[in-house]
Amino acid sequence: MEKPKWVVDKERAKRAAAAETVWLFGLHAVRDALMNPARERMRLVVTKNAADKLYDAIIASGMEPEIVDPRKFDKAVEIDTESVHQGAALHARPLSWGSVEDVCLTGAGAPLVVLLDRVTDPHNVGAILRSAEVFGARAVIAPARHSAPETGALAKTASGALERQPYLRVQNLADAMESLREMGFELIGLDGKAELTIAEGVAQAGTRPIALVLGAEGPGLREKTRETCDRLVKIPFATDFGSLNVSNAAAISLYAAVNR
Amino acid sequence: MEKPKWVVDKERAKRAAAAETVWLFGLHAVRDALMNPARERMRLVVTKNAADKLYDAIIASGMEPEIVDPRKFDKAVEIDTESVHQGAALHARPLSWGSVEDVCLTGAGAPLVVLLDRVTDPHNVGAILRSAEVFGARAVIAPARHSAPETGALAKTASGALERQPYLRVQNLADAMESLREMGFELIGLDGKAELTIAEGVAQAGTRPIALVLGAEGPGLREKTRETCDRLVKIPFATDFGSLNVSNAAAISLYAAVNR
Repeated sequence: MEKPKWVVDKERAKRAAAAETVWLFGLHAVRDALMNPARERMRLVVTKNAADKLYDAIIASGMEPEIVDPRKFDKAVEIDTESVHQGAALHARPLSWGSVEDVCLTGAGAPLVVLLDRVTDPHNVGAILRSAEVFGARAVIAPARHSAPETGALAKTASGALERQPYLRVQNLADAMESLREMGFELIGLDGKAELTIAEGVAQAGTRPIALVLGAEGPGLREKTRETCDRLVKIPFATDFGSLNVSNAAAISLYAAVNR
Repeated sequence: MEKPKWVVDKERAKRAAAAETVWLFGLHAVRDALMNPARERMRLVVTKNAADKLYDAIIASGMEPEIVDPRKFDKAVEIDTESVHQGAALHARPLSWGSVEDVCLTGAGAPLVVLLDRVTDPHNVGAILRSAEVFGARAVIAPARHSAPETGALAKTASGALERQPYLRVQNLADAMESLREMGFELIGLDGKAELTIAEGVAQAGTRPIALVLGAEGPGLREKTRETCDRLVKIPFATDFGSLNVSNAAAISLYAAVNR
Protein backbone atom coordinates (compact mmCIF):
# COMPACT_ATOMS: atom_id res chain seq x y z
CA MET A 1 0.00 0.00 0.00
CA GLU A 2 1.26 3.45 -0.86
CA LYS A 3 1.79 5.86 1.96
CA PRO A 4 -0.99 8.42 2.12
CA LYS A 5 -0.05 11.93 1.04
CA TRP A 6 -0.13 13.33 4.55
CA VAL A 7 2.38 10.73 5.76
CA VAL A 8 4.71 11.55 2.88
CA ASP A 9 4.32 15.27 3.57
CA LYS A 10 4.99 14.77 7.24
CA GLU A 11 8.15 12.80 6.58
CA ARG A 12 9.34 15.38 4.09
CA ALA A 13 8.70 18.18 6.58
CA LYS A 14 10.59 16.24 9.23
CA ARG A 15 13.61 15.83 6.97
CA ALA A 16 13.52 19.52 6.00
CA ALA A 17 13.30 20.52 9.65
CA ALA A 18 16.24 18.28 10.53
CA ALA A 19 18.41 20.08 7.97
CA GLU A 20 17.29 23.54 9.05
CA THR A 21 19.27 25.61 11.52
CA VAL A 22 18.62 28.97 13.11
CA TRP A 23 20.59 31.68 14.83
CA LEU A 24 18.97 32.90 18.02
CA PHE A 25 20.33 36.08 19.56
CA GLY A 26 19.83 38.48 22.42
CA LEU A 27 20.48 37.67 26.08
CA HIS A 28 16.90 36.70 26.87
CA ALA A 29 16.35 34.42 23.86
CA VAL A 30 19.77 32.77 24.19
CA ARG A 31 19.30 32.18 27.92
CA ASP A 32 15.88 30.58 27.32
CA ALA A 33 17.31 28.33 24.60
CA LEU A 34 20.29 27.33 26.79
CA MET A 35 17.95 26.39 29.63
CA ASN A 36 15.65 24.34 27.39
CA PRO A 37 16.73 20.66 27.47
CA ALA A 38 14.73 20.00 24.29
CA ARG A 39 16.74 22.52 22.27
CA GLU A 40 19.47 20.99 20.08
CA ARG A 41 22.37 23.44 20.17
CA MET A 42 25.43 23.69 17.95
CA ARG A 43 27.44 26.84 18.60
CA LEU A 44 27.34 29.51 21.25
CA VAL A 45 29.08 32.74 20.34
CA VAL A 46 29.30 35.37 23.06
CA THR A 47 31.28 38.39 24.14
CA LYS A 48 33.02 38.17 27.50
CA ASN A 49 30.41 40.50 28.94
CA ALA A 50 27.49 38.40 27.66
CA ALA A 51 29.19 35.21 28.88
CA ASP A 52 29.28 36.67 32.40
CA LYS A 53 25.58 37.53 32.24
CA LEU A 54 24.70 34.09 30.90
CA TYR A 55 27.03 32.25 33.28
CA ASP A 56 24.41 30.07 34.99
CA ALA A 57 22.63 29.20 31.75
CA ILE A 58 25.92 28.27 30.04
CA ILE A 59 26.84 25.98 32.94
CA ALA A 60 23.38 24.42 32.87
CA SER A 61 23.61 23.81 29.12
CA GLY A 62 27.04 22.19 29.32
CA MET A 63 28.11 24.14 26.23
CA GLU A 64 31.58 25.44 25.54
CA PRO A 65 31.08 29.08 24.53
CA GLU A 66 33.20 30.75 21.85
CA ILE A 67 34.24 34.07 23.37
CA VAL A 68 34.72 36.77 20.74
CA ASP A 69 35.80 40.37 20.75
CA PRO A 70 32.71 42.66 20.57
CA ARG A 71 34.13 44.32 17.46
CA LYS A 72 34.42 40.97 15.70
CA PHE A 73 31.03 39.68 16.79
CA ASP A 74 29.15 40.51 13.59
CA LYS A 75 31.67 38.56 11.51
CA ALA A 76 31.64 35.53 13.79
CA VAL A 77 27.91 34.90 13.49
CA GLU A 78 25.47 34.81 10.61
CA ILE A 79 22.90 37.26 11.88
CA ASP A 80 21.59 40.46 10.43
CA THR A 81 23.92 43.34 11.30
CA GLU A 82 20.85 45.34 12.33
CA SER A 83 20.01 42.81 15.05
CA VAL A 84 20.18 43.86 18.67
CA HIS A 85 22.20 40.80 19.66
CA GLN A 86 23.60 42.05 23.00
CA GLY A 87 26.75 40.04 22.28
CA ALA A 88 25.06 36.65 22.43
CA ALA A 89 24.15 34.33 19.56
CA LEU A 90 23.27 30.65 19.53
CA HIS A 91 23.32 28.44 16.47
CA ALA A 92 20.67 25.77 16.99
CA ARG A 93 18.10 23.54 15.37
CA PRO A 94 14.43 24.47 15.34
CA LEU A 95 12.53 22.72 18.09
CA SER A 96 10.79 19.51 17.12
CA TRP A 97 7.29 19.51 18.53
CA GLY A 98 5.88 16.39 16.87
CA SER A 99 2.95 16.13 14.50
CA VAL A 100 -0.17 18.27 14.34
CA GLU A 101 -2.09 15.23 15.57
CA ASP A 102 0.19 14.60 18.55
CA VAL A 103 0.25 18.20 19.67
CA CYS A 104 -3.34 19.24 18.98
CA LEU A 105 -5.21 16.12 20.00
CA THR A 106 -3.54 15.32 23.28
CA GLY A 107 -1.13 18.16 23.98
CA ALA A 108 -1.12 20.35 27.05
CA GLY A 109 -3.40 23.33 27.32
CA ALA A 110 -6.92 23.99 26.13
CA PRO A 111 -8.20 22.38 22.92
CA LEU A 112 -7.44 25.62 21.12
CA VAL A 113 -4.97 26.24 18.29
CA VAL A 114 -3.99 29.17 16.07
CA LEU A 115 -3.28 28.80 12.34
CA LEU A 116 -1.38 31.51 10.49
CA ASP A 117 -1.83 31.86 6.75
CA ARG A 118 1.34 33.48 5.39
CA VAL A 119 2.03 35.70 8.37
CA THR A 120 5.71 36.34 7.69
CA ASP A 121 6.68 39.14 10.05
CA PRO A 122 8.76 37.61 12.86
CA HIS A 123 7.73 40.29 15.36
CA ASN A 124 4.07 39.49 14.82
CA VAL A 125 4.60 35.73 15.01
CA GLY A 126 6.70 36.15 18.15
CA ALA A 127 3.94 38.18 19.82
CA ILE A 128 1.35 35.61 18.71
CA LEU A 129 3.38 32.75 20.26
CA ARG A 130 3.46 34.72 23.47
CA SER A 131 -0.32 35.30 23.48
CA ALA A 132 -0.95 31.67 22.50
CA GLU A 133 1.06 30.57 25.51
CA VAL A 134 -0.68 32.99 27.86
CA PHE A 135 -4.11 31.79 26.74
CA GLY A 136 -3.01 28.15 26.87
CA ALA A 137 -3.36 27.29 23.18
CA ARG A 138 -1.91 23.92 22.21
CA ALA A 139 -0.13 25.08 19.09
CA VAL A 140 0.51 27.80 16.56
CA ILE A 141 0.57 26.27 13.08
CA ALA A 142 1.95 27.86 9.92
CA PRO A 143 2.97 26.69 6.45
CA ALA A 144 6.65 25.68 6.17
CA ARG A 145 7.03 28.14 3.33
CA HIS A 146 5.74 31.73 3.52
CA SER A 147 5.92 31.84 7.29
CA ALA A 148 8.26 33.40 9.81
CA PRO A 149 11.26 31.18 10.56
CA GLU A 150 12.40 30.68 14.14
CA THR A 151 14.82 33.55 13.85
CA GLY A 152 16.26 35.62 16.60
CA ALA A 153 13.78 38.45 15.98
CA LEU A 154 10.90 36.04 16.51
CA ALA A 155 12.50 34.55 19.61
CA LYS A 156 13.14 38.00 21.02
CA THR A 157 9.54 39.18 20.55
CA ALA A 158 8.21 35.85 21.86
CA SER A 159 10.00 36.65 25.12
CA GLY A 160 10.69 33.02 26.01
CA ALA A 161 7.50 31.57 24.54
CA LEU A 162 9.42 30.14 21.56
CA GLU A 163 11.00 27.55 23.86
CA ARG A 164 7.68 26.57 25.43
CA GLN A 165 4.88 27.18 22.92
CA PRO A 166 4.59 24.59 20.11
CA TYR A 167 5.11 26.31 16.75
CA LEU A 168 4.49 23.79 13.98
CA ARG A 169 5.30 24.45 10.38
CA VAL A 170 3.41 22.19 7.99
CA GLN A 171 3.71 21.45 4.28
CA ASN A 172 0.13 22.39 3.51
CA LEU A 173 -2.08 24.54 5.68
CA ALA A 174 -5.40 23.35 4.20
CA ASP A 175 -4.41 19.70 4.88
CA ALA A 176 -3.61 20.58 8.49
CA MET A 177 -6.99 22.29 8.72
CA GLU A 178 -8.72 19.14 7.44
CA SER A 179 -6.84 17.05 10.03
CA LEU A 180 -7.98 19.41 12.75
CA ARG A 181 -11.57 19.19 11.52
CA GLU A 182 -11.38 15.40 11.71
CA MET A 183 -10.12 15.70 15.27
CA GLY A 184 -13.25 17.69 16.10
CA PHE A 185 -11.92 21.23 15.88
CA GLU A 186 -14.20 24.00 14.68
CA LEU A 187 -12.26 26.07 12.13
CA ILE A 188 -12.99 29.75 12.67
CA GLY A 189 -11.41 32.16 10.18
CA LEU A 190 -10.94 35.88 10.79
CA ASP A 191 -12.23 37.94 7.88
CA GLY A 192 -13.04 41.66 8.01
CA LYS A 193 -15.98 41.13 5.64
CA ALA A 194 -17.65 38.35 7.68
CA GLU A 195 -21.14 38.92 9.06
CA LEU A 196 -20.72 36.99 12.32
CA THR A 197 -18.72 38.59 15.11
CA ILE A 198 -15.95 36.64 16.82
CA ALA A 199 -18.07 36.51 20.01
CA GLU A 200 -21.00 35.01 18.07
CA GLY A 201 -18.71 32.60 16.21
CA VAL A 202 -17.04 31.16 19.30
CA ALA A 203 -20.42 30.96 21.07
CA GLN A 204 -21.79 28.90 18.16
CA ALA A 205 -18.86 26.50 18.54
CA GLY A 206 -20.28 25.64 21.97
CA THR A 207 -17.81 23.53 23.90
CA ARG A 208 -16.04 22.16 20.81
CA PRO A 209 -12.29 22.67 20.33
CA ILE A 210 -11.52 25.81 18.34
CA ALA A 211 -8.92 26.47 15.65
CA LEU A 212 -8.53 30.20 14.94
CA VAL A 213 -7.29 30.99 11.43
CA LEU A 214 -5.63 34.35 10.72
CA GLY A 215 -4.15 35.74 7.52
CA ALA A 216 -1.52 38.39 6.92
CA GLU A 217 -2.44 42.05 7.25
CA GLY A 218 -3.54 43.33 3.87
CA PRO A 219 -4.18 40.16 1.85
CA GLY A 220 -5.96 38.36 4.69
CA LEU A 221 -6.84 34.68 4.26
CA ARG A 222 -6.11 33.03 0.91
CA GLU A 223 -9.19 31.77 -0.93
CA LYS A 224 -8.43 28.10 -0.29
CA THR A 225 -7.90 28.80 3.42
CA ARG A 226 -11.10 30.83 3.64
CA GLU A 227 -13.09 28.06 1.95
CA THR A 228 -11.69 25.43 4.31
CA CYS A 229 -12.96 27.28 7.40
CA ASP A 230 -16.22 26.18 9.04
CA ARG A 231 -17.22 29.76 9.64
CA LEU A 232 -15.84 33.25 9.14
CA VAL A 233 -15.98 35.91 11.80
CA LYS A 234 -14.92 39.53 12.19
CA ILE A 235 -13.72 41.58 15.12
CA PRO A 236 -16.31 44.34 15.27
CA PHE A 237 -14.68 47.72 14.88
CA ALA A 238 -15.97 51.13 15.79
CA THR A 239 -14.35 52.81 12.78
CA ASP A 240 -13.60 51.99 9.17
CA PHE A 241 -10.08 53.37 9.37
CA GLY A 242 -7.12 51.07 9.28
CA SER A 243 -7.06 47.53 10.50
CA LEU A 244 -5.67 45.76 13.51
CA ASN A 245 -2.14 44.49 13.61
CA VAL A 246 -2.35 40.69 13.14
CA SER A 247 -0.88 39.94 16.58
CA ASN A 248 -3.51 42.17 18.16
CA ALA A 249 -6.25 40.43 16.16
CA ALA A 250 -4.88 37.07 17.35
CA ALA A 251 -4.83 38.22 20.98
CA ILE A 252 -8.45 39.40 20.80
CA SER A 253 -9.52 36.14 19.12
CA LEU A 254 -7.76 34.02 21.74
CA TYR A 255 -9.33 36.09 24.50
CA ALA A 256 -12.79 35.68 22.93
CA ALA A 257 -12.28 31.92 22.49
CA VAL A 258 -11.04 31.35 26.05
CA ASN A 259 -13.78 33.53 27.54
CA ARG A 260 -16.69 32.28 25.46
CA MET B 1 -5.52 84.95 41.57
CA GLU B 2 -2.78 82.48 40.95
CA LYS B 3 -3.17 80.12 38.08
CA PRO B 4 -4.13 76.63 39.26
CA LYS B 5 -1.40 74.01 38.96
CA TRP B 6 -3.03 72.21 36.07
CA VAL B 7 -3.15 75.41 34.00
CA VAL B 8 0.53 76.05 34.67
CA ASP B 9 1.35 72.44 33.81
CA LYS B 10 -0.66 72.63 30.63
CA GLU B 11 1.07 75.81 29.51
CA ARG B 12 4.46 74.34 30.30
CA ALA B 13 3.63 71.20 28.33
CA LYS B 14 2.49 73.37 25.43
CA ARG B 15 5.77 75.28 25.39
CA ALA B 16 7.79 72.07 25.65
CA ALA B 17 5.84 70.54 22.78
CA ALA B 18 6.37 73.64 20.64
CA ALA B 19 10.14 73.29 21.04
CA GLU B 20 10.16 69.55 20.35
CA THR B 21 10.85 68.16 16.92
CA VAL B 22 10.82 64.64 15.53
CA TRP B 23 12.27 62.78 12.58
CA LEU B 24 9.73 60.54 10.87
CA PHE B 25 11.04 58.02 8.38
CA GLY B 26 9.96 55.26 6.06
CA LEU B 27 7.87 55.74 2.91
CA HIS B 28 4.55 55.02 4.58
CA ALA B 29 5.04 57.26 7.63
CA VAL B 30 6.52 60.11 5.56
CA ARG B 31 3.70 59.93 3.00
CA ASP B 32 1.07 60.04 5.77
CA ALA B 33 2.76 63.04 7.38
CA LEU B 34 3.09 64.84 4.03
CA MET B 35 -0.61 64.32 3.34
CA ASN B 36 -1.68 65.54 6.79
CA PRO B 37 -2.51 69.28 6.63
CA ALA B 38 -2.24 69.51 10.43
CA ARG B 39 1.40 68.36 10.44
CA GLU B 40 3.95 71.17 10.76
CA ARG B 41 6.91 70.15 8.58
CA MET B 42 10.43 71.53 8.47
CA ARG B 43 12.73 69.42 6.26
CA LEU B 44 12.14 66.60 3.84
CA VAL B 45 15.23 64.55 3.02
CA VAL B 46 14.81 61.88 0.35
CA THR B 47 16.75 59.82 -2.13
CA LYS B 48 15.85 60.25 -5.80
CA ASN B 49 14.15 56.87 -5.69
CA ALA B 50 12.04 57.74 -2.64
CA ALA B 51 11.17 61.13 -4.14
CA ASP B 52 9.72 59.35 -7.17
CA LYS B 53 7.62 57.09 -4.97
CA LEU B 54 6.41 60.01 -2.87
CA TYR B 55 5.83 62.29 -5.87
CA ASP B 56 2.12 62.91 -5.30
CA ALA B 57 2.48 63.42 -1.57
CA ILE B 58 5.38 65.86 -2.04
CA ILE B 59 3.34 67.89 -4.54
CA ALA B 60 0.36 67.85 -2.16
CA SER B 61 2.53 69.06 0.73
CA GLY B 62 4.09 71.90 -1.24
CA MET B 63 7.48 71.02 0.27
CA GLU B 64 10.81 71.39 -1.47
CA PRO B 65 12.57 68.05 -0.91
CA GLU B 66 16.33 67.81 -0.34
CA ILE B 67 17.48 65.05 -2.65
CA VAL B 68 20.51 63.19 -1.28
CA ASP B 69 22.71 60.38 -2.47
CA PRO B 70 21.63 57.08 -0.82
CA ARG B 71 25.17 56.61 0.53
CA LYS B 72 25.04 60.00 2.23
CA PHE B 73 21.53 59.60 3.62
CA ASP B 74 22.52 58.54 7.12
CA LYS B 75 24.70 61.63 7.56
CA ALA B 76 22.05 64.01 6.21
CA VAL B 77 19.43 63.09 8.79
CA GLU B 78 19.45 62.57 12.54
CA ILE B 79 17.94 59.13 12.71
CA ASP B 80 19.21 55.90 14.14
CA THR B 81 21.45 54.15 11.61
CA GLU B 82 19.55 50.94 12.34
CA SER B 83 16.31 52.49 11.10
CA VAL B 84 14.67 51.09 8.00
CA HIS B 85 14.19 54.54 6.48
CA GLN B 86 13.67 53.53 2.83
CA GLY B 87 15.45 56.73 1.79
CA ALA B 88 12.80 59.06 3.19
CA ALA B 89 12.93 61.19 6.34
CA LEU B 90 10.85 64.14 7.45
CA HIS B 91 11.83 66.58 10.17
CA ALA B 92 8.60 67.80 11.74
CA ARG B 93 6.89 68.98 14.89
CA PRO B 94 4.80 66.64 16.99
CA LEU B 95 1.11 67.04 16.21
CA SER B 96 -0.79 69.36 18.48
CA TRP B 97 -4.04 67.74 19.49
CA GLY B 98 -5.26 70.20 22.11
CA SER B 99 -5.93 69.60 25.78
CA VAL B 100 -7.07 66.42 27.48
CA GLU B 101 -10.39 68.20 28.15
CA ASP B 102 -10.89 69.26 24.52
CA VAL B 103 -10.07 65.87 23.06
CA CYS B 104 -11.67 63.56 25.63
CA LEU B 105 -14.82 65.47 26.42
CA THR B 106 -16.00 66.39 22.98
CA GLY B 107 -13.62 64.70 20.55
CA ALA B 108 -14.62 62.33 17.79
CA GLY B 109 -15.10 58.65 18.52
CA ALA B 110 -16.52 56.80 21.48
CA PRO B 111 -16.13 58.20 25.01
CA LEU B 112 -13.18 55.86 25.48
CA VAL B 113 -9.52 56.69 26.10
CA VAL B 114 -6.31 54.78 26.80
CA LEU B 115 -3.73 55.92 29.33
CA LEU B 116 -0.20 54.54 29.22
CA ASP B 117 1.91 54.58 32.38
CA ARG B 118 5.56 54.61 31.28
CA VAL B 119 5.12 52.46 28.20
CA THR B 120 8.30 53.48 26.40
CA ASP B 121 8.68 51.01 23.54
CA PRO B 122 7.76 52.85 20.32
CA HIS B 123 6.64 49.64 18.59
CA ASN B 124 4.13 48.96 21.34
CA VAL B 125 2.86 52.53 21.44
CA GLY B 126 2.55 52.54 17.64
CA ALA B 127 0.47 49.35 17.71
CA ILE B 128 -1.66 50.78 20.53
CA LEU B 129 -2.36 53.95 18.52
CA ARG B 130 -3.47 51.74 15.66
CA SER B 131 -5.81 49.67 17.86
CA ALA B 132 -7.12 52.83 19.55
CA GLU B 133 -8.02 54.23 16.14
CA VAL B 134 -9.65 50.99 15.01
CA PHE B 135 -11.81 50.82 18.13
CA GLY B 136 -12.61 54.53 17.91
CA ALA B 137 -10.97 55.70 21.14
CA ARG B 138 -10.77 59.47 21.52
CA ALA B 139 -7.17 59.60 22.71
CA VAL B 140 -4.09 57.78 23.90
CA ILE B 141 -2.57 59.68 26.81
CA ALA B 142 0.95 59.26 28.20
CA PRO B 143 3.26 61.24 30.47
CA ALA B 144 5.55 63.67 28.61
CA ARG B 145 8.54 62.00 30.24
CA HIS B 146 8.99 58.23 30.34
CA SER B 147 6.86 57.67 27.27
CA ALA B 148 7.57 56.86 23.64
CA PRO B 149 8.26 59.99 21.59
CA GLU B 150 6.67 60.38 18.17
CA THR B 151 9.67 58.83 16.51
CA GLY B 152 9.84 57.15 13.16
CA ALA B 153 9.65 53.68 14.72
CA LEU B 154 6.39 54.60 16.42
CA ALA B 155 4.99 56.15 13.24
CA LYS B 156 5.98 53.10 11.23
CA THR B 157 4.27 50.64 13.59
CA ALA B 158 1.23 52.90 13.88
CA SER B 159 0.79 52.45 10.13
CA GLY B 160 -0.75 55.88 9.55
CA ALA B 161 -2.62 56.08 12.85
CA LEU B 162 -0.08 58.59 14.23
CA GLU B 163 -1.45 61.24 11.87
CA ARG B 164 -5.09 60.54 12.81
CA GLN B 165 -5.22 59.21 16.37
CA PRO B 166 -4.78 61.83 19.13
CA TYR B 167 -1.67 60.97 21.18
CA LEU B 168 -1.45 63.38 24.10
CA ARG B 169 1.56 63.66 26.34
CA VAL B 170 0.81 65.25 29.69
CA GLN B 171 2.97 66.57 32.52
CA ASN B 172 1.37 64.36 35.14
CA LEU B 173 -0.60 61.21 34.46
CA ALA B 174 -2.42 61.14 37.81
CA ASP B 175 -3.64 64.73 37.22
CA ALA B 176 -4.92 63.75 33.79
CA MET B 177 -6.70 60.80 35.40
CA GLU B 178 -8.37 63.13 37.92
CA SER B 179 -9.50 65.40 35.08
CA LEU B 180 -10.97 62.41 33.28
CA ARG B 181 -12.76 61.32 36.44
CA GLU B 182 -14.29 64.80 36.77
CA MET B 183 -15.47 64.53 33.16
CA GLY B 184 -17.31 61.34 34.12
CA PHE B 185 -14.83 58.72 32.94
CA GLU B 186 -14.54 55.46 34.86
CA LEU B 187 -10.82 54.76 35.36
CA ILE B 188 -10.15 51.07 34.83
CA GLY B 189 -6.58 49.90 35.47
CA LEU B 190 -5.12 46.65 34.14
CA ASP B 191 -3.41 44.68 36.89
CA GLY B 192 -2.54 40.99 36.74
CA LYS B 193 -3.32 40.61 40.44
CA ALA B 194 -6.81 42.13 40.28
CA GLU B 195 -9.81 40.01 41.21
CA LEU B 196 -12.28 41.44 38.72
CA THR B 197 -11.96 40.42 35.08
CA ILE B 198 -11.88 43.06 32.34
CA ALA B 199 -15.32 41.85 31.17
CA GLU B 200 -16.76 42.29 34.68
CA GLY B 201 -15.04 45.65 35.08
CA VAL B 202 -16.37 47.17 31.88
CA ALA B 203 -19.84 45.73 32.58
CA GLN B 204 -19.84 47.44 35.99
CA ALA B 205 -19.05 50.73 34.28
CA GLY B 206 -22.44 50.46 32.60
CA THR B 207 -22.77 53.09 29.89
CA ARG B 208 -20.27 55.48 31.44
CA PRO B 209 -17.21 56.64 29.49
CA ILE B 210 -14.19 54.41 30.10
CA ALA B 211 -10.51 55.26 30.52
CA LEU B 212 -8.30 52.16 30.28
CA VAL B 213 -5.00 52.46 32.16
CA LEU B 214 -2.08 50.21 31.21
CA GLY B 215 1.44 50.01 32.59
CA ALA B 216 4.67 48.79 31.08
CA GLU B 217 5.34 45.08 30.84
CA GLY B 218 7.17 43.98 33.96
CA PRO B 219 6.66 46.85 36.39
CA GLY B 220 2.98 47.35 35.51
CA LEU B 221 1.15 50.36 36.94
CA ARG B 222 3.02 52.60 39.34
CA GLU B 223 1.52 52.76 42.83
CA LYS B 224 0.16 56.29 42.45
CA THR B 225 -1.44 55.35 39.12
CA ARG B 226 -2.94 52.18 40.57
CA GLU B 227 -4.41 54.11 43.52
CA THR B 228 -5.94 56.70 41.22
CA CYS B 229 -7.94 54.08 39.31
CA ASP B 230 -11.61 53.50 40.16
CA ARG B 231 -11.19 49.77 39.77
CA LEU B 232 -8.53 47.27 38.80
CA VAL B 233 -9.17 44.41 36.40
CA LYS B 234 -7.21 41.54 34.93
CA ILE B 235 -7.34 39.76 31.61
CA PRO B 236 -8.09 36.20 32.64
CA PHE B 237 -5.36 33.85 31.47
CA ALA B 238 -5.39 30.14 31.09
CA THR B 239 -1.77 29.72 32.18
CA ASP B 240 0.59 31.28 34.67
CA PHE B 241 3.43 31.46 32.19
CA GLY B 242 4.56 34.76 30.81
CA SER B 243 2.45 37.79 30.29
CA LEU B 244 0.84 39.51 27.36
CA ASN B 245 2.66 42.07 25.31
CA VAL B 246 1.26 45.49 26.36
CA SER B 247 -0.12 46.27 22.91
CA ASN B 248 -1.98 42.94 22.94
CA ALA B 249 -3.34 43.69 26.41
CA ALA B 250 -4.49 47.11 25.15
CA ALA B 251 -6.20 45.56 22.11
CA ILE B 252 -8.07 43.06 24.28
CA SER B 253 -9.11 45.80 26.73
CA LEU B 254 -10.35 48.05 23.93
CA TYR B 255 -12.26 45.12 22.42
CA ALA B 256 -13.83 44.32 25.79
CA ALA B 257 -14.76 47.98 26.40
CA VAL B 258 -16.29 48.50 22.95
CA ASN B 259 -18.18 45.19 23.12
CA ARG B 260 -19.43 45.44 26.72
